Amino acid sequence: MSVVSLPEEHWVTALADVEGVEPVLWDMKDAPPRDDIELVVPPYLGNPKRLARLAELPRLRAVQLVTAGFEHAVPYLPDGVELANGRGIHDTSTAELAVGLAIAAQRGIPQAVRAQGDGEWLRMAGLPSLADRRALIIGYGAIGVAIAKRLLPMEVSVTAVASKARGGDDLVDQVHGIDELSTLLPDHDVVFLILPLTDETRHLVDADFLARMPRNALLVNVARGGVVDTDALVEACAAGRVRAALDVTDPEPLPQDHPLWHTEGVLITPHVGGASTAFEPRALRLLRSELARFGGGAPLRNVVATGHR
Amino acid sequence: MSVVSLPEEHWVTALADVEGVEPVLWDMKDAPPRDDIELVVPPYLGNPKRLARLAELPRLRAVQLVTAGFEHAVPYLPDGVELANGRGIHDTSTAELAVGLAIAAQRGIPQAVRAQGDGEWLRMAGLPSLADRRALIIGYGAIGVAIAKRLLPMEVSVTAVASKARGGDDLVDQVHGIDELSTLLPDHDVVFLILPLTDETRHLVDADFLARMPRNALLVNVARGGVVDTDALVEACAAGRVRAALDVTDPEPLPQDHPLWHTEGVLITPHVGGASTAFEPRALRLLRSELARFGGGAPLRNVVATGHR
Repeated sequence: MSVVSLPEEHWVTALADVEGVEPVLWDMKDAPPRDDIELVVPPYLGNPKRLARLAELPRLRAVQLVTAGFEHAVPYLPDGVELANGRGIHDTSTAELAVGLAIAAQRGIPQAVRAQGDGEWLRMAGLPSLADRRALIIGYGAIGVAIAKRLLPMEVSVTAVASKARGGDDLVDQVHGIDELSTLLPDHDVVFLILPLTDETRHLVDADFLARMPRNALLVNVARGGVVDTDALVEACAAGRVRAALDVTDPEPLPQDHPLWHTEGVLITPHVGGASTAFEPRALRLLRSELARFGGGAPLRNVVATGHR
Repeated sequence: MSVVSLPEEHWVTALADVEGVEPVLWDMKDAPPRDDIELVVPPYLGNPKRLARLAELPRLRAVQLVTAGFEHAVPYLPDGVELANGRGIHDTSTAELAVGLAIAAQRGIPQAVRAQGDGEWLRMAGLPSLADRRALIIGYGAIGVAIAKRLLPMEVSVTAVASKARGGDDLVDQVHGIDELSTLLPDHDVVFLILPLTDETRHLVDADFLARMPRNALLVNVARGGVVDTDALVEACAAGRVRAALDVTDPEPLPQDHPLWHTEGVLITPHVGGASTAFEPRALRLLRSELARFGGGAPLRNVVATGHR
């Protein structure tokens, strides 16, 4: 029986019947309740600094995150401890918001909301539908695939881009490499960003990238704010060249006096891509399967790093 | 060679090559340019009163609309003249807006837009996704089917309702009759209205209907404003019992001082369901096929009424 810690009381209850593990409650705010914890599930939206407490667990073997991003946890990983991410948990929620942001921006929902505040029935016929647009999905992992699945029945054509070119799947004929971006951008009306933030992808969307997008094209960012050079985006949107729908920004949270808030053609949601009710049932489904593997001595499926320090 | 009138110059150009017909330009504002017109395509968003000019055409045999609604044209139909509607033209645009309104309302996009105006990074994690919700589509014609097609890949469960119960299709197991509504409503979180406005459906959504919806459920109206009793809706939303996303209202346009504008939980777009760029290519596709039939002596496919007066 391996002791595993969970950050929510009702998760402990929900997973009490998983064989081979003994779930205990620990939100990592205070010292661990027991020193024999072998696997830790940190809180979803907790301060990463709490992860320093991992060092207090001599029998720790694994950390199972419920986020797709994992970079924040790597520095706290004790030697030999495996880190697994929450791959798949956020696909549904994030892809749904990405598509919702795209429809909202295309069909004038932000303008309608502002007019509603004034009791004004706007005349805004003839805006561009999302249908018939050519979408470029940059980052074709699980969430990118989930976005494509939702766009295709909406009569959107989809081009996928990943770090390296590869064969297609049942949604796209091929996956282009990110080195093809400069030739792909001019032929796409809506660009979805859902790639990891790394040294290579930081400021991928710069002035040159934006200049290659067709006039009035839409940039949808549900990845990380740092993938976009915010100053360049403000300039391109203010000039009326492109539009943007952003669930993430750089800096984040966006300070009240930041010009991005009031830039023409920009729609901002406060990083809620993954944070909907779709999260918890999918998190519990993944934890149930991973804890059962851990309890049975099988390897975790989404190991993304191992501690060595 | 049958003379047919079209309301847009570039439609005349686009359809000049259709066999068996001679397209001429007529937007119905003034007298007809020729008296031998046999089929009229009225303007998309023109004043219905212009249809009185149909009486000036002695050889008129048919009127082909580019709208799904056709009630406005019936009173102007000369004896024996067939009326065909634009079935299918608006499916894509309307279904897209319906789904966009639903995601926007569920995921807090209107709140984010208002907060953006204040430069405020809202804390709004944990809002209900559209995924995992149980949707009821009331009106399962072409647009209802198009809505279902978009909801299913979003992990929404779909129940269809039409005027009479019938068998299912590849999207739903069965289509419920509208007489089953009172038992269906309590089990559905999002209700899409896309049924025709008739004497039977006027004020279908009344205080009783709204009281049967689960607490905090969402009503999405992309049909006609008159399907909803506006006073009852204002009351239910103001009480925090249900929410609404409306592309159509009653009255319409909504007067500036109407309480619906500022009712809690209500999102309003100004009747733009069909009015996006998705309209024109689909209108031209339908006109091309129907004019070819007309030119070849075949019956129009979407005849919905014949004049007798």
